[in-house]
Amino acid sequence: MSVLSAQKMVEKWNIFEAELPGPSAGNPFTEQKIEGMFCSKNEEKTVAGFYDGEGRYKVRFMPSFEGEYKYELKASFLSETETGTFMVTAPGEGNHGPVRVADTYHFAYEDGTRYYSIGTTCYVWTLQTDELPEQTLETLKNSAFNKIRFCIFPKHYDYNLDEPASYPYEGTPCDSSVLTKENFQEYSGCAPGNDWDYYRFNPVHFQKFEAQIKNLMELGIEADIIVMHPYDRWGFSEMPAKCDDLYWNYVIARLSAFRNVWWSLANEFDLLSKKSDADWERYAKIICEKDVYNHLRSIHNCKSFYDYNRPWITHCSIQRQDIYKTGELTDEWRLRYKKPIVIDEMAYEGNIQHGWGNISGRELVRRFWETTCRGGYAGHGETFLHPEDILWWSHGGTLHGESPKRLKFLYQILSEIPNARGLAPKKMNWDEVAAVPDTTMGADDYYLIYYGFNRPSFRTYKLAKDRSYEVDVIDTWEMSVENKGIYSGAFTVELPGKEYMAVRIKRVK
Amino acid sequence: MSVLSAQKMVEKWNIFEAELPGPSAGNPFTEQKIEGMFCSKNEEKTVAGFYDGEGRYKVRFMPSFEGEYKYELKASFLSETETGTFMVTAPGEGNHGPVRVADTYHFAYEDGTRYYSIGTTCYVWTLQTDELPEQTLETLKNSAFNKIRFCIFPKHYDYNLDEPASYPYEGTPCDSSVLTKENFQEYSGCAPGNDWDYYRFNPVHFQKFEAQIKNLMELGIEADIIVMHPYDRWGFSEMPAKCDDLYWNYVIARLSAFRNVWWSLANEFDLLSKKSDADWERYAKIICEKDVYNHLRSIHNCKSFYDYNRPWITHCSIQRQDIYKTGELTDEWRLRYKKPIVIDEMAYEGNIQHGWGNISGRELVRRFWETTCRGGYAGHGETFLHPEDILWWSHGGTLHGESPKRLKFLYQILSEIPNARGLAPKKMNWDEVAAVPDTTMGADDYYLIYYGFNRPSFRTYKLAKDRSYEVDVIDTWEMSVENKGIYSGAFTVELPGKEYMAVRIKRVK
Repeated sequence: MSVLSAQKMVEKWNIFEAELPGPSAGNPFTEQKIEGMFCSKNEEKTVAGFYDGEGRYKVRFMPSFEGEYKYELKASFLSETETGTFMVTAPGEGNHGPVRVADTYHFAYEDGTRYYSIGTTCYVWTLQTDELPEQTLETLKNSAFNKIRFCIFPKHYDYNLDEPASYPYEGTPCDSSVLTKENFQEYSGCAPGNDWDYYRFNPVHFQKFEAQIKNLMELGIEADIIVMHPYDRWGFSEMPAKCDDLYWNYVIARLSAFRNVWWSLANEFDLLSKKSDADWERYAKIICEKDVYNHLRSIHNCKSFYDYNRPWITHCSIQRQDIYKTGELTDEWRLRYKKPIVIDEMAYEGNIQHGWGNISGRELVRRFWETTCRGGYAGHGETFLHPEDILWWSHGGTLHGESPKRLKFLYQILSEIPNARGLAPKKMNWDEVAAVPDTTMGADDYYLIYYGFNRPSFRTYKLAKDRSYEVDVIDTWEMSVENKGIYSGAFTVELPGKEYMAVRIKRVK
Repeated sequence: MSVLSAQKMVEKWNIFEAELPGPSAGNPFTEQKIEGMFCSKNEEKTVAGFYDGEGRYKVRFMPSFEGEYKYELKASFLSETETGTFMVTAPGEGNHGPVRVADTYHFAYEDGTRYYSIGTTCYVWTLQTDELPEQTLETLKNSAFNKIRFCIFPKHYDYNLDEPASYPYEGTPCDSSVLTKENFQEYSGCAPGNDWDYYRFNPVHFQKFEAQIKNLMELGIEADIIVMHPYDRWGFSEMPAKCDDLYWNYVIARLSAFRNVWWSLANEFDLLSKKSDADWERYAKIICEKDVYNHLRSIHNCKSFYDYNRPWITHCSIQRQDIYKTGELTDEWRLRYKKPIVIDEMAYEGNIQHGWGNISGRELVRRFWETTCRGGYAGHGETFLHPEDILWWSHGGTLHGESPKRLKFLYQILSEIPNARGLAPKKMNWDEVAAVPDTTMGADDYYLIYYGFNRPSFRTYKLAKDRSYEVDVIDTWEMSVENKGIYSGAFTVELPGKEYMAVRIKRVK
């Protein structure tokens, strides 16, 4: 037996993959084991492989350095170690490596390029049928979104009662024809009629899932993968610990070599009534041990926050806890956790009946700016009633709201911060939400001041007398930037007395 | 010597006034004393009179019962007691007596008529010149406002640098020609150049002031009188204790017989740097002793609340402490203080540079509804830039904003609550701000549910199956009420998926 296929050349931060033939008898998922050791002059890593169905086993590896790598593959079904070499070339255009935490509160790709997160959520877009997933990719391509949150498991919830395109396990689902908008909540957890083998994965489900991760990677979009969630009628949210662990190991073996992966242990973890903090800590331990690339890790709340102080949590993935204050609490959370603040759910633009899914585009964009000017990152979602119940928030498709193009504009503003820095909240006037760059480097050279629903007709700023500052008035809703000229010392800027204005001050001398 | 003039007939809750000639030599304010004892079969009260200038002394009394009253007038300058009688007749139309606290959290006039407070603020409208005060009255007459907050002392502040129409004391003010928008803050407290006799009031100032209280009374508007405030260049905010006490006694002797008077000990009491809590408690004691009619009493904060638990405080007169949450905190404050919650300042509709004076009409109206549906009362103010610096908030005049007519609509909705009850917050769905009547009488017969910036396209309510409810959809901004018919049990109501909607449910069977 020998390696069926293996690359000879791979781009840094892309995936080297080796495929081996092996036994399909018995249960390959539990009875067989495969791993690879990878070695170059800069790194040495051992990663688990996985069974991909039809007698095929795979080992994936993401190299972090250029140059020659050697590898050894060992498997329970191999009598000898398979070895080989490959070359790692320079990263291609748009390949900046995995996203890492930078400057305590921010993110940068591994090559140092700043990453300003503008996230969105399409929970089960990869599990939709027909042309919908392709349409979603097309929509993403034309948007500012550079992170998307989505689930591995299918979703059972209001507007989500159809069968998914595939299931993660071998078996048969319960009968969904009995479900209605009125009764679906009675079928939660493992509904009667399910017949799954939680020890046998369905490789096709994962193949399709990871193909979409790759598609996102090519669009420069981070895949914030929700590994567990409570919206369930199949029992995937209440499997025995042994099956959970098997699942976590399988997911990590398959997906961790994708550079754009972020781990979200769960969405609304506190709604998974069968899981305890000890379970979450155990999953976290598995990730920390098995994901040799140290992808970003977090866990998303419904009501109560998980303890974001836990050392394995790289950033806060927050659902707002207050109906009125969302982004407004960013600076408090920064102080409390000393990690990047990502408010992944702060209510969605839309008009559905649920209170988390019916705010206006204006309000959502306001929340993004509030978050941004307090040194955090916000997340988008969209939930408009649709004749075929296709809601971006869960199914993807096309966008109907007013916020996405304003978020593109916000991204543009962020990308113009001198020296590509992150923002930190700054106390200026009591009614201003003001930000300056988050590092001390180049202090007093940039201010971004947001007025939200306040509508001042003018504002006086007091800056250094011996310096010069260029002032722009930004209409965050109309997406315009008006240059007001150069000022020094104390100066007054006229403003249009409208909502949603910002002032940008850049030191020029 | 004898009574110069005294009424023989007076309406219940109107003012009986006796005028006596007396000495004008020396200092009548400090050297003379006059008081009246009033007696009928239902009440017996002793009130202080006051010197009104030009050798005239006055005693005022508000009778609370119909029928015959006897009185005795005693004065330091009278050798004998003057006595007399008068008849108190039934109150005329629109005369409901003073406003009292009712049902812990609400207000009613003394005759039992419910009082739903819709307040506004025009700090020094009575001290404006020309036709402005008259214009203010005309504006008020056509508005929903049934309470107005204003000051006895003139105001020194941004947009308030001109000399007032009159001063409360004999003397000369400092030179205001040196004041500019930039330097006015340097002239705070007692600026150089002032020369006042804090022991000699200017009766003309008070005569004009109380004439306006009477005008308000005739319009059915409560006069929420701000007795002290910090916006000062004349030293009125930092007089010696003895002068403060003289002032308080004079104000109470002159004004407490007006049935529409409320006492606001101060506006932004915490900015009066020369006054301590002991001072405020001393003033409160004077009011409690000398205002025999027990008018409503409160004190308004800038940053920190005064301790609204103090027994002399009849209701909370709140300035919001949070930029984002104003009315949203009403239910917490109800729980904390068990008194009526009046948020007198929650930012004003306008476009001036100050953050407290530039929110939109939409946002102000939203805050009113939030407050209302949590069982409280809100206050309006308006601060639009004006070519002659005439801003409603301080000067009165005319209104320019979008909120006043919506507040009239809100008042209309309140006046339609069956059995004229106050509202209490009710936990219904987590994203609803819902209110029911505040007493247990007639439970489950009325619901007012507000959606604020949420935009549900439909909503399901679960009410009793054996009862019938009439449902209205209220557009709080467009000021329309759409009747949706009669429902029982669980039912779904279509909503327009717009902001600022409310649903009203009235039990009909």
